[in-house]
Amino acid sequence: MAQSTVADLVERHRPTLEAAVAAAAQRGYWSAYPESPSPKVYGETAAAEGLEAYQAYLGKPFPIDQPSTDGWVGSERSPFGPKLGVTYPHPEVDALLAAMKAALPAWRDAGPETRAAVCIEIVDRLNKRSFELANAIMHTSGQAFVMSFQAGGTHAQDRALEAIAYGYAEMTRHAGSAYWEKPQGKRDPLKMTKTFHPVPRGIALVIGCNTFPTWNSYPGLFASLVTGNPVVVKPHPRAVLPLAITVAVGREVLAESGFDPNLMCLAAEADGEGLATVLATHHDVKIVDFTGSSQYGNWLEQHARQAQVYTEKAGVNTVVVDSTDDWRGMLGNIAFSLVLYSGQMCTTPQNFLVPRDGIQTDDGHKSFDEVAAGISVAVDNLTGDEARAVELLGAIVNQGVLDRLAHAEGLGSVVRPSATLTHPSFPDAVVRTPLLVALDAKDEEVYAGEHFGPISFVIATDSTEQSLEIFRRTVGTHGALTASVYSTREPVLEAAEDAAIDVGVALSCNLNGGVFVNQSAAFSDFHGTGANPACNAALTDGAFVAGRFRIVQSRRHV
Amino acid sequence: MAQSTVADLVERHRPTLEAAVAAAAQRGYWSAYPESPSPKVYGETAAAEGLEAYQAYLGKPFPIDQPSTDGWVGSERSPFGPKLGVTYPHPEVDALLAAMKAALPAWRDAGPETRAAVCIEIVDRLNKRSFELANAIMHTSGQAFVMSFQAGGTHAQDRALEAIAYGYAEMTRHAGSAYWEKPQGKRDPLKMTKTFHPVPRGIALVIGCNTFPTWNSYPGLFASLVTGNPVVVKPHPRAVLPLAITVAVGREVLAESGFDPNLMCLAAEADGEGLATVLATHHDVKIVDFTGSSQYGNWLEQHARQAQVYTEKAGVNTVVVDSTDDWRGMLGNIAFSLVLYSGQMCTTPQNFLVPRDGIQTDDGHKSFDEVAAGISVAVDNLTGDEARAVELLGAIVNQGVLDRLAHAEGLGSVVRPSATLTHPSFPDAVVRTPLLVALDAKDEEVYAGEHFGPISFVIATDSTEQSLEIFRRTVGTHGALTASVYSTREPVLEAAEDAAIDVGVALSCNLNGGVFVNQSAAFSDFHGTGANPACNAALTDGAFVAGRFRIVQSRRHV
Repeated sequence: MAQSTVADLVERHRPTLEAAVAAAAQRGYWSAYPESPSPKVYGETAAAEGLEAYQAYLGKPFPIDQPSTDGWVGSERSPFGPKLGVTYPHPEVDALLAAMKAALPAWRDAGPETRAAVCIEIVDRLNKRSFELANAIMHTSGQAFVMSFQAGGTHAQDRALEAIAYGYAEMTRHAGSAYWEKPQGKRDPLKMTKTFHPVPRGIALVIGCNTFPTWNSYPGLFASLVTGNPVVVKPHPRAVLPLAITVAVGREVLAESGFDPNLMCLAAEADGEGLATVLATHHDVKIVDFTGSSQYGNWLEQHARQAQVYTEKAGVNTVVVDSTDDWRGMLGNIAFSLVLYSGQMCTTPQNFLVPRDGIQTDDGHKSFDEVAAGISVAVDNLTGDEARAVELLGAIVNQGVLDRLAHAEGLGSVVRPSATLTHPSFPDAVVRTPLLVALDAKDEEVYAGEHFGPISFVIATDSTEQSLEIFRRTVGTHGALTASVYSTREPVLEAAEDAAIDVGVALSCNLNGGVFVNQSAAFSDFHGTGANPACNAALTDGAFVAGRFRIVQSRRHV
Repeated sequence: MAQSTVADLVERHRPTLEAAVAAAAQRGYWSAYPESPSPKVYGETAAAEGLEAYQAYLGKPFPIDQPSTDGWVGSERSPFGPKLGVTYPHPEVDALLAAMKAALPAWRDAGPETRAAVCIEIVDRLNKRSFELANAIMHTSGQAFVMSFQAGGTHAQDRALEAIAYGYAEMTRHAGSAYWEKPQGKRDPLKMTKTFHPVPRGIALVIGCNTFPTWNSYPGLFASLVTGNPVVVKPHPRAVLPLAITVAVGREVLAESGFDPNLMCLAAEADGEGLATVLATHHDVKIVDFTGSSQYGNWLEQHARQAQVYTEKAGVNTVVVDSTDDWRGMLGNIAFSLVLYSGQMCTTPQNFLVPRDGIQTDDGHKSFDEVAAGISVAVDNLTGDEARAVELLGAIVNQGVLDRLAHAEGLGSVVRPSATLTHPSFPDAVVRTPLLVALDAKDEEVYAGEHFGPISFVIATDSTEQSLEIFRRTVGTHGALTASVYSTREPVLEAAEDAAIDVGVALSCNLNGGVFVNQSAAFSDFHGTGANPACNAALTDGAFVAGRFRIVQSRRHV
């Protein structure tokens, strides 16, 4: 029964898998999961059902059946106000990992094609529950609803599929078996058959973050799972629900497909418990995927020595402003990138390097102050209508962001203070607009560090040449996930690209429309590079998947 | 001029590159460099010219021009007797690495195709100097001449080409640029062009070993170089010459192709100086490839934290003997694998697990003692004629091997003592035949460790089931580079393969002819797995190359 189900899955998902593998190589636009939360795409009842499903979780133990539970934990509060009141099973670690190890051999032996099909089925089911997930993401991350649906739902699903495609391609780049015949001159040739088994490393740990519980977790989760590793998911204690739903869906599909559901387990923790450290340094954990602070990411890289560790940490995302032939487009694009999710993205620009003598634009010369004011006004325009603003800004995810905001106001000359807005639907939500602070090039000790949240600096430099020097130095030393440049001069664009290549950061040039520096598209844009201190891996390239399994061969004479 | 040269190289080597990429995927037999040292292949004068070229190095400073030399070092003595008397430039490390860093951008910007062509040209030139290299390898490693020519010459060249092919394939698996058009419903689509630059990590260090100075160094060296990293080669102080020739050839080709020769540099050291540690922990060194002891390999993995570290260390290579339908073939094959280079290969079998009640064979039942004696006699047969024996045994590489041999004689019941032979051509060569010691399964503390050299144990077990248990436990805990099994029973072969998959070691079944467990063929066999403690990488798979570079993208609207 399970056999036929799995064969069906392999057949059903083969076209998607093949298309995904091809798309990843070609890197044009491709998406498997429509990003529009429209009833025309997802059905007339999908939105209401998703909300209902979300609400059904509230105030109860989360419905998941997994072994070795020694208690129930949960303290999530929506950044939009209400407590969620959901509790989750807390694992007895050694027993949980033992159950997961026991699940490994059958999954390993099922082979790449079957694993890829089962993984895609999981993602497909998650896609069908995108509204439910969007509500869960909104009320744990503070993202506005549409962003939760897109970034946390469909874009995360595309990133999951991308990781599956890379893992599958990597496991199947070699023949599974081969005939080898070596000539021996006049003697008979030597003849052998050889078999090549991809074998997983062991148990994989995914450590989720507060702001993007699914988008940042899915690539590692599915890259590990498709390559044969059981995956234990340790969510951020303030963003458990989206990953609990994910794990529950995964367990359901695994069990239906005849596999041990313990190939995917949830490891929820009490806030401040430190379960990530216990798991990440456990001798049975062989892979760790982490998104979060540089401090803890660096600690993991140093101390989780028994595991392959993939980290996404923090950096100083930088924009070099030299000149533009679309002043309004540039300002609107920059403002949107600052307003989106209140700047609480690891990809939000922080440092705007602007010549103190101003810049040339299609609207005439603009002084440094006019550039700063222009960004400020563009932000005002996006946030002036409170009801519309909250659908971009979302809510502040936690007190740490507010503390940094308060601190940042004293770091320089405030160009635009952060305003507090009232959310029409959620009066308890903390909604803040971006803070813009003017600095001078010499204030490097301030702007060389990350100030996570709706905090950006407009930094006066002697020239674009100095801007590029600062860009090289700060990103080279402290890392960045994104960079962008505005210039009408091709030599400046080239110099910026040279600098981006030297310091290893992805560069966007002259964004002035509907593409924003903080967004990266699965199958086309690599998220992060692994080439600067902000992360040691990219989503997704060969290096992200190749180390998650090994090839064990056997050979015998024919 | 350099431009046209490089274009010529690209054209000339494209067929080889494409064939190598295809061969690596298909994994049948393929080789670019003929292994036969026959005059028909390499020319009537090649052998004499190679010997002459080797002899011309002796007693002089090695002819290599590289910057930042602060002295000359060299203390090589041939395991066959004579001192080499060659001296090599000793680098001032910071200045040498600075010169190498300066060479990086042009090499990076040349792109994958050009780099692959230049790398293949280097390997082709090394191939043409295979006799010269064979003499250098023979007189530093102690390998007999034909093995030096094949393993150190042509097989190493094939492994180099394999690494180049993997690196090239990995860098070109994505489009170099792409057009991206995202539909926006009724609005105009978003349109961008994107460029994807493969960028190297930085300076790569290759730490060579005494026994296989080229075979074990070339994969890392060429994998790093083709992916854009300058490579500094730190040879073992007793096996410098083969790598000095390699670096000199590389520098010559790089310079002729219009690149900075400092993309390949030699870092020779005085014996005991510890230069590897200085280099491996230097902030500019971003990749380390190491072959040698588990102790130092593990130290590098722990301490060279700024670098990606690839290690091949030591393990307990194991043979499970259950039964055979080719008693003579089995014994002959095993004996050859022990005699070859006096067991001084990281792939030589050490532990033979044999049921104490004996085994079934096509020559009737054989007791445990008869199995041990059978191997012993087969070794005698291969080593009885001194003049022929030395062409298999070569010479003992260093005093450490002799010390271990003396120690091992006291570890159990000696089945076959190690004999001392006299080399007809090199009276000062230390030539020893394999030692065979009988142990019991309970002597695990003895056989669970590696005893590098011509030292093997025939271990009496309760049954093949216990043999497989011991195999799992010792290889799982201490690692192995090779394993093999002899059985006429399919369930035993399957159980051995299951065990090999579980503990992550390559398995050879019933070898009884011209393929030996200690040999792995480029493009078909993976050497090592990275899945057990004997090494953290395999030669060569995607994981070996994917982490040596990163992808940095730029994007702009059309």
